[in-house]
Amino acid sequence: VTRFAFEPAPLDRGANIRAKPEEVAKYRASPHVGFVRLAGDQVAFAGGQLTTTAPDAATPCIFLGTDATGKPWFAAEASASDSLVPLRTLMVDGLLPPDALSIVAQGRSLVHWHESHRFCARCGAESLMQDAGYRRHCPQCSADHFPRTDPVVIMAVIKDNRTLLGRQKSWPANMYSTLAGFMEPGETIETAVRREVFEEVGLRLARIDYVASQPWPFPASLMIGMIGVAEDETLTIDHNEIETARWFDAGEVQMMLDRTHPEGLTASRPDAIAWHLTKEALQRIRG
Amino acid sequence: VTRFAFEPAPLDRGANIRAKPEEVAKYRASPHVGFVRLAGDQVAFAGGQLTTTAPDAATPCIFLGTDATGKPWFAAEASASDSLVPLRTLMVDGLLPPDALSIVAQGRSLVHWHESHRFCARCGAESLMQDAGYRRHCPQCSADHFPRTDPVVIMAVIKDNRTLLGRQKSWPANMYSTLAGFMEPGETIETAVRREVFEEVGLRLARIDYVASQPWPFPASLMIGMIGVAEDETLTIDHNEIETARWFDAGEVQMMLDRTHPEGLTASRPDAIAWHLTKEALQRIRG
Repeated sequence: VTRFAFEPAPLDRGANIRAKPEEVAKYRASPHVGFVRLAGDQVAFAGGQLTTTAPDAATPCIFLGTDATGKPWFAAEASASDSLVPLRTLMVDGLLPPDALSIVAQGRSLVHWHESHRFCARCGAESLMQDAGYRRHCPQCSADHFPRTDPVVIMAVIKDNRTLLGRQKSWPANMYSTLAGFMEPGETIETAVRREVFEEVGLRLARIDYVASQPWPFPASLMIGMIGVAEDETLTIDHNEIETARWFDAGEVQMMLDRTHPEGLTASRPDAIAWHLTKEALQRIRG
Repeated sequence: VTRFAFEPAPLDRGANIRAKPEEVAKYRASPHVGFVRLAGDQVAFAGGQLTTTAPDAATPCIFLGTDATGKPWFAAEASASDSLVPLRTLMVDGLLPPDALSIVAQGRSLVHWHESHRFCARCGAESLMQDAGYRRHCPQCSADHFPRTDPVVIMAVIKDNRTLLGRQKSWPANMYSTLAGFMEPGETIETAVRREVFEEVGLRLARIDYVASQPWPFPASLMIGMIGVAEDETLTIDHNEIETARWFDAGEVQMMLDRTHPEGLTASRPDAIAWHLTKEALQRIRG
């Protein structure tokens, strides 16, 4: 059952062939091959479907894997003539089936990594794509670099029969959702959850549980979805971190999820793990 | 309750002062300040304790936070005269209390990030440490870079009354432990667990649960500890990935944890989350 965007994993990633250029080339030359064509966070998309045409033979491609029909998928830069649609629009407007959206997300995170890691962070020399896109090697200092995924904790906070939701200034007006923040070196998931909740709203947490996780390709995060029980209810909001936050009872949360709240307040979009966490919080506060 | 190394979080990291150089300088000038002195994975340590002397005023320092007594902690490069001990030895030989080990781990991951990210990966120019060590800024292309943490899935696999444990060639002889692997862009935690287990031993998993997490400062991983129930028992081992793997019943696992196995087989060391996962698997297969 798919609960949110990017949860399906439709590809066998075939990690064991990445370092075998002949096998990768065989897939690339397959008559059934598909290419996800990308320019930053824009995806080649026209006529209601992905533009999956092959780039010219010199264009480096990232091997994404093979789908259930055996069709190989690659990611590559879009060509100048491609019609482009932001990945976020493809998600929000439901323009792609869930499996295709996952394939595009994988490609987008990897293409972004190459775009933002063209040079060796250790010595500054230009590095080279290897292993069908899963490694960059520095010819000057011999360092190997691997794709980066940034773990983020995202958490619903509950206390008795209420849940805490907050909002960022940049969000759509009237949307309230879960708190979140990037993990730091040296933290457990639980430590990061406690730190972020205390920093943003001044609450200490007792019990913390894991709920679910979601890759978030804007550009390459791993959202680790948690739920925590607050020790008390008094908020000390850091307005540099969030716009505001408040407690909601079950009736309000239900209306925010259903988009029937009388003041027009809403939860996040259902694509986001935040929506699933808000629903989980609702179940818990209903008891 | 501390279950494994690096689980305690003894510092208030004070993220809100990192971008305020005067406040950071005040902490640095405190008479009670402590410095974790590092050279790669080696820690300044002498006479049974950390060498926490201040570097000269020009040495850049990373602000780690303040402990429960209000003492500020920083990390900085070791000086040439420091006596050095590997962080792994401090852990394995129990040379530091758990809280101090966590502080050193945080420092080691951050110092490693600066050592390995001196240049901007986007444009190749030399970048500058900012925010007391939590950001590097590129003066040429204006990119901001943030510390990297690599999520790793590590999982016990069980089926009926047995658990699967494997070994890497590089491990101590006779040690069997949980499977593990780096997460990739576009994966949920559960997808990564399924992929790694299938790649390494050919098993498909049914239910997967989260158990615990551990920061692993060798150099900067986040171990996400999971337990999965295999759909069947037939192993197809990829010997390029692991040396071997096999099923163990509860009696054997108990002896491996206790280091009383007649063939000398052992579980991992108790410092590692793998030990905790192995224990969790034992509880589950005992029912």
